[in-house]
Amino acid sequence: MAAEKGFCLWFTGLSGSGKTTITNVLVKELRRRGSKLEVLDGDIVRQNLSKGLGFSKEDRDTNIRRVAFVADLLSRNEVPVITAAISPYRQLRDEARAKMDGRFIEAYVKASVEECERRDVKGLYAKARSGEIKEFTGVSDPYEPPENAELVIDTEEQSPEESAHQILDYLEQQGLIPAA
Amino acid sequence: MAAEKGFCLWFTGLSGSGKTTITNVLVKELRRRGSKLEVLDGDIVRQNLSKGLGFSKEDRDTNIRRVAFVADLLSRNEVPVITAAISPYRQLRDEARAKMDGRFIEAYVKASVEECERRDVKGLYAKARSGEIKEFTGVSDPYEPPENAELVIDTEEQSPEESAHQILDYLEQQGLIPAA
Repeated sequence: MAAEKGFCLWFTGLSGSGKTTITNVLVKELRRRGSKLEVLDGDIVRQNLSKGLGFSKEDRDTNIRRVAFVADLLSRNEVPVITAAISPYRQLRDEARAKMDGRFIEAYVKASVEECERRDVKGLYAKARSGEIKEFTGVSDPYEPPENAELVIDTEEQSPEESAHQILDYLEQQGLIPAA
Repeated sequence: MAAEKGFCLWFTGLSGSGKTTITNVLVKELRRRGSKLEVLDGDIVRQNLSKGLGFSKEDRDTNIRRVAFVADLLSRNEVPVITAAISPYRQLRDEARAKMDGRFIEAYVKASVEECERRDVKGLYAKARSGEIKEFTGVSDPYEPPENAELVIDTEEQSPEESAHQILDYLEQQGLIPAA
């Protein structure tokens, strides 16, 4: 087994793009390989660190800074972390990257708004279109795609399992996780 | 060197009781021994996780729950953590204890309000007495001392170095840190 190394696999992408689904596949496989792992999923973080924050630019930024603060604490102690928040703003992701210099792996989970809206697993796009949800990323709030992500995961072209394998291959090549 | 084990050394005590001073001595010594360590000091947490929260009972509880959430993430991954927040309410400390079952070490940093007020390193007691600061623990807000703390650190009777040694002895006996 490879030595544990700390890294932060930072997913970014629209609601419905597949961040959580891919995370679940990864968690199962990484646990099977005996790797430590923590997941800071958007909902977990909103519940435990950011209750009371809304979805204005300022509140989103605060939320993402908290995710980065905790991801840094873990990854600098050799605990691998996956974050799975929309994290729509490039500047905030770059802030997280700078904080976790050398440990930050940006994974852009790519799917068009049209495709995410077609999936609409949680029914959120429908609520955003009807105006029931305001400030919804991709509909009424901006999403800024990464320009230099370490990984681009095209979930219109591949299944969650294929996406997970693309990521596992990358992490193995970097010597960050035990081999299969 | 002993295997790294995760634990949470949870300080509780009035402002000025000596939590931060003792923490600083501990950090220096534990780093010297090659132990991993993270410190979640009251100010660090207020800055990074709880900006916008005040000092009402509800906001204090939210703050302490966030400290416990992060301390749990770290300690369950074998990263020792020191928390140094006033944490005045027994119920919230007991919640943290339950969450970190078997990893939680409560250290009551004991000094009377009179003594802390006499020290008044940050000038906060003066501001609390004049009414400039509201809801100040020990003056205008309650402090509930622990009933079954693993450690009682009497900072009216001993120096910060003596207090740190009392704690180091305990952690060594428990097999939680490398020997000197």
